[in-house]
Amino acid sequence: MTATPTACLLIIGNEVLSGRTQDANLAHIARKLGERGIALREARVIPDVPETIIGTVNEVRQKFAHVLTTGGIGPTHDDITSECIAAAFGVPWEKQPEAWARMEAFYVQRDGTAEAFNAARQRMATMPRGATLIDNAISIAPGFTIGNVHVLAGVPRIMQAMLETLLPRLGGGPPILSRTLTGYGLMEGAIAAGLEEVQKAFPGLDLGSYPFYGRGGRGNGVSIVAKGTEAAAIEAAMARVATLMQSLGVEPEEGEPPPA
Amino acid sequence: MTATPTACLLIIGNEVLSGRTQDANLAHIARKLGERGIALREARVIPDVPETIIGTVNEVRQKFAHVLTTGGIGPTHDDITSECIAAAFGVPWEKQPEAWARMEAFYVQRDGTAEAFNAARQRMATMPRGATLIDNAISIAPGFTIGNVHVLAGVPRIMQAMLETLLPRLGGGPPILSRTLTGYGLMEGAIAAGLEEVQKAFPGLDLGSYPFYGRGGRGNGVSIVAKGTEAAAIEAAMARVATLMQSLGVEPEEGEPPPA
Repeated sequence: MTATPTACLLIIGNEVLSGRTQDANLAHIARKLGERGIALREARVIPDVPETIIGTVNEVRQKFAHVLTTGGIGPTHDDITSECIAAAFGVPWEKQPEAWARMEAFYVQRDGTAEAFNAARQRMATMPRGATLIDNAISIAPGFTIGNVHVLAGVPRIMQAMLETLLPRLGGGPPILSRTLTGYGLMEGAIAAGLEEVQKAFPGLDLGSYPFYGRGGRGNGVSIVAKGTEAAAIEAAMARVATLMQSLGVEPEEGEPPPA
Repeated sequence: MTATPTACLLIIGNEVLSGRTQDANLAHIARKLGERGIALREARVIPDVPETIIGTVNEVRQKFAHVLTTGGIGPTHDDITSECIAAAFGVPWEKQPEAWARMEAFYVQRDGTAEAFNAARQRMATMPRGATLIDNAISIAPGFTIGNVHVLAGVPRIMQAMLETLLPRLGGGPPILSRTLTGYGLMEGAIAAGLEEVQKAFPGLDLGSYPFYGRGGRGNGVSIVAKGTEAAAIEAAMARVATLMQSLGVEPEEGEPPPA
């Protein structure tokens, strides 16, 4: 069994912690990393506070193979991710020549004046020394990688475009596979003991049990999800889960329940 | 200025880290705490791994006034939050008499047999010694508080009901107020310098700048959000933000842009 590299996601921004903005990046990043055989093992939502960003980056870059960050790389005063990453690595935060030249040309051409590439926009072309650019097809401002830390935008469609650039550069393990069986009318308390036996028989898999309520006319029930890198083990475990559901009078159905 | 107590949220569950489940609890909890004058300062999504849960709980309960957890208190093998909290506090994980009696009566009456209150369901009435119950109107299984750690369900409607029980028990500061002005057609790079001056003039406020793209026929723009506990400071800062937008040829509008 090849080892699965680990990742940690830092979601940087007061707006997520205040409840103003619903994060839409975690689930997307988790699925994309999983397809590449990289396991997202932790995510943290942290505020736009320098000591917190610097301390957290330095903690998690030691613990995980990869650290991805989202948010805080725009032009305003609350966009401090980039300079905090430089501080975390103890390197200068300086003009990145390639990003600088490209952004200067873009803004001057668009607005027809050299003043368009103002101090705020110049901040987006200022990066930790040694950073490698993460380009994207949507915004002129790039993300960047330094060491094992990958710095992405917070706006979902820009983040997603940057992630597509980044993913092929990350070494991954075998893809993380998943299969779901859903039992309508099933109760967790009824299947729990049998399910624990299946988990014990397949220690290399991650078996999860997720109850749901009132889904698309199908009512309540439980979905059982098996995740792992070995297809044969997933099939064997899920055959036992199906038998378990049938022994409780429930016919298992493939996949997730309909949305609420 | 009265101090604002801090809080940290631990979202416990492999299903959030794998991207299977979109967390729907963080934003709700953040807003409800803010109304009570408690500031959510960090959130972490962690897996169903005992060492991780125990270590994280013991780290954050020292750093924040309150710790809330969601997830992992159901009846199945992957529901390990409760026993991990007991381990974190170094107390026995044992039958909670009140929860036990209530749940036993419920299941036996519902199913007409003593066997209905099986080992899996008994786990939901097993708690760290010294736990105080957090009842809710929706599910028979309660959450609990031990020390400054408040353990809630992961299913949103059950979590929300438990939170309503919990909130009046938490001491809060003055409510965290918020006001938003939106400039359609405005660009962050144009307003950034002026906005930084306003932030410097009002260090007690948290001024955020949030670009948006293609919202409900209104196109692109920027929302400026001021948060703080002093209403007069928010009004004064936002008057300056409005003037700033007007100087850039944009008429500010109250509130957030329409959904995407």
